[in-house]
Amino acid sequence: MFLVQRRLYTLGSRAKLLKTIYSLNTLGFSTSAKMALKFKNAKRIEGLDSNVWVEFTKLAADPSVVNLGQGLPDISPPTYVKEELSKAALTDNLNQYTRGFGHPSLVKALSCLYEKIYQNQIDPNEEIIVTVGGYGALFNTIQGLVDPGDEVIIMVPFYDCYEPMVRMAGATPVFIPLRSKPTDGMKWSSSDWTFNPQELESKFSSKTKAIILNTPHNPIGKVYTREELKVIADLCIKYDTVCISDEVYEWLVYTGHKHIKIATFPGMWERTITIGSAGKTFSVTGWKLGWSIGPKHLIKHLQTVQQNTFYTCATPLQAALAQALWIDIKRMDSPECYFNSLAKELEVKRDRMVRLLNSVGLKPIIPDGGYFIIADVSSLDADLSDMKSDEPYDYKFVKWMTKNKKLSGIPVSAFCDSESKSQFEKLVRFCFIKKDSTLDAAEEIIKAWSSPKS
Amino acid sequence: MFLVQRRLYTLGSRAKLLKTIYSLNTLGFSTSAKMALKFKNAKRIEGLDSNVWVEFTKLAADPSVVNLGQGLPDISPPTYVKEELSKAALTDNLNQYTRGFGHPSLVKALSCLYEKIYQNQIDPNEEIIVTVGGYGALFNTIQGLVDPGDEVIIMVPFYDCYEPMVRMAGATPVFIPLRSKPTDGMKWSSSDWTFNPQELESKFSSKTKAIILNTPHNPIGKVYTREELKVIADLCIKYDTVCISDEVYEWLVYTGHKHIKIATFPGMWERTITIGSAGKTFSVTGWKLGWSIGPKHLIKHLQTVQQNTFYTCATPLQAALAQALWIDIKRMDSPECYFNSLAKELEVKRDRMVRLLNSVGLKPIIPDGGYFIIADVSSLDADLSDMKSDEPYDYKFVKWMTKNKKLSGIPVSAFCDSESKSQFEKLVRFCFIKKDSTLDAAEEIIKAWSSPKS
Ligand SMILES: Cc1ncc(COP(=O)(O)O)c(C=O)c1O
Ligand SMILES: Cc1ncc(COP(=O)(O)O)c(C=O)c1O
Repeated sequence: MFLVQRRLYTLGSRAKLLKTIYSLNTLGFSTSAKMALKFKNAKRIEGLDSNVWVEFTKLAADPSVVNLGQGLPDISPPTYVKEELSKAALTDNLNQYTRGFGHPSLVKALSCLYEKIYQNQIDPNEEIIVTVGGYGALFNTIQGLVDPGDEVIIMVPFYDCYEPMVRMAGATPVFIPLRSKPTDGMKWSSSDWTFNPQELESKFSSKTKAIILNTPHNPIGKVYTREELKVIADLCIKYDTVCISDEVYEWLVYTGHKHIKIATFPGMWERTITIGSAGKTFSVTGWKLGWSIGPKHLIKHLQTVQQNTFYTCATPLQAALAQALWIDIKRMDSPECYFNSLAKELEVKRDRMVRLLNSVGLKPIIPDGGYFIIADVSSLDADLSDMKSDEPYDYKFVKWMTKNKKLSGIPVSAFCDSESKSQFEKLVRFCFIKKDSTLDAAEEIIKAWSSPKS
Repeated sequence: MFLVQRRLYTLGSRAKLLKTIYSLNTLGFSTSAKMALKFKNAKRIEGLDSNVWVEFTKLAADPSVVNLGQGLPDISPPTYVKEELSKAALTDNLNQYTRGFGHPSLVKALSCLYEKIYQNQIDPNEEIIVTVGGYGALFNTIQGLVDPGDEVIIMVPFYDCYEPMVRMAGATPVFIPLRSKPTDGMKWSSSDWTFNPQELESKFSSKTKAIILNTPHNPIGKVYTREELKVIADLCIKYDTVCISDEVYEWLVYTGHKHIKIATFPGMWERTITIGSAGKTFSVTGWKLGWSIGPKHLIKHLQTVQQNTFYTCATPLQAALAQALWIDIKRMDSPECYFNSLAKELEVKRDRMVRLLNSVGLKPIIPDGGYFIIADVSSLDADLSDMKSDEPYDYKFVKWMTKNKKLSGIPVSAFCDSESKSQFEKLVRFCFIKKDSTLDAAEEIIKAWSSPKS
């Protein structure tokens, strides 16, 4: 392939191209077989090449599609956040390398913010590391702590990168399902979903290196309760396990619910890495800045990974994020503080989505946090007969919907291990951190689709 | 440690603190020993925790120090580069996630730029991946291609991260020295440094997965000649080896020398990953954007690594970089083009450094490319008797110089494997991408120091 293409360009004539292909064919199969072998991937990434974001982002790139797929805000980020970056860009020294584990003003702002929440001192240099997004924080943590042969417990469904990241570290993911309680028929909420404590304990063993917790939860929107967290914390301590707590949606919690940090439970600070994200905090997913917070004896391993992967994050973004954080740290008790106001803004959008989905009989799981809502799409009619047949129903459904209804979402089975996929394949996740006009467009599509054909 | 510190803060009284320490002591050693075991690093990063940048950047952070250490430009980056970022920051959708393997406009600009140089077609989506700096491109490449048990050939001295990155992949670095030819006594140039072809061939074997090439070379400033590259290319083909070509200083080549891409040699495109850096191209090291270019059958493995590490790079930086590239792509033949003008600007600074170092008897290795110059500091008197004794001479020397002379550099033995360190420990690397006032200050320090005490 590659040789043909190169020569095509260089020689530029049809006749010569044919000659080239011919001579390649006589060199024949053995060359390409050998090449395929020598240029193979390293084993650590074997089988990890498919990715739901790559696949579905490409599909939704068509501008005529109403994109409720990837968690990509189309509302404006706060003006001061954008302006701080715009200013930093014009400051010469903020365009140069900074401290590898986090720009000094940023780790200071983060320590100040989280000291308020943890009610405890946090060393900006030794207990915080700034990373490339929450995603990069997960990677750093897993690479720094997890060895081949280790086991890592993951609750299903899960933010999709947990599984390949654990596999890339050579470890074995051990899955435990979140299950829905029977509901009263009408209201189905993310808090109906929980794990069975005995079942969870049965997954722990001497091989368990870590458990990955995600609260508020993507895709279900579950906000773990104090009681649930206590069960997890007790097991972590009993089995001497690290807790990787992905809390990127920490501020996005709706009325009646409260985000609680498992790291604040007795005995947990010393074994917990808590992960946050600037992208989620300030609705700037394109900044790809995140952080891990934890005890020095764990953070230092994440630092070692970082200095051998990309060394340091972008300075202008870090400097701007620090400034933006200071603005909101100073008004944390005010409803204007973005940490509070965004949740309020999103709650209205959530309620709208719940009403819409209910009105057309697509039973939603009402999220208590985050900016996603899951709907059971089994009642929507869709002719999937043309679709590739080896994929789960929801993959086919979303592809069909994107193409034929110009509406995109994310199949919930993408958040499942291979064995659980079939239990979730009638569910689709929609993102609602969208301007009203986008939600209007989605509403129109859904209503037209579900209304009885005349 | 951690428990004591936590409680110190919570209880806040000296008496209680003492009690806490006491009770911890009675719990005693076994707890911390157990903790130390459970919270240990993953084996892949064992012994990779020291880092010259972390160590020496901290030292040079003292504002009274003239910092010729890390490769950190203190000249202004081009105005349009900063302005493009400033504009992108204010554009809502450029603050959100973009395509994981590179923002569409950026990979397009890169393919256009490099098509001119390779004289060949480059597919923006399948033959280019945008990464977190040249550093991140190296990491991606090594993680994507190199397995435990493989060998990777590295020429000494080398940009320091090559060795730990290869080790983190579980592979074995195989070192071959660059050696200096005897010189005429007066002029010592980076082109006096080369490798012995027979010696290089002796390092290749069936275990060799890759060789890492770096041209223009950091720290020596060597620009590999066509003949040298031919030797390397022939060996890569003979032993069916991947070539990782770190060309982050590709534009910074001085009069009489030319940067040549090994990927353009016959049979090499298909086995070469070529690495570039926005930080080096536009003097914005803080942007941490880089790229790898190569055949689809290799790039796809780098993509797999990326989607399981941090998924995507920052959008505003990528969008701004694309715009900045277009400006200079359009004027590549003009002396105004930054790719050309920066090299001219730096050549004056290089010549100044050569004169300075020669004038005080610190024989420099005159670089043909890059923005570093190495000097032999053995003639400078320095009282190192107070310094930690297990470090190489140049480590002690630079620490002493930073503290006592307020001038910083980087010890060249930091760029060596443990066996070669002793051969390079009288050499110090100075960075000269600095404004004239910084170079003036350095000149003053060096002249005062070396002048005979009266
Ligand atoms: C649960 C969860 N963790 C981590 C991430 C990644 O965050 P970032 O964009 O900061 O890398 C996401 C993004 O959607 C997420 O939903
Ligand atoms: C030879 C070499 N490669 C790679 C890098 C890293 O480049 P970046 O800052 O783009 O990550 C450097 C930086 O100094 C370098 O000198």
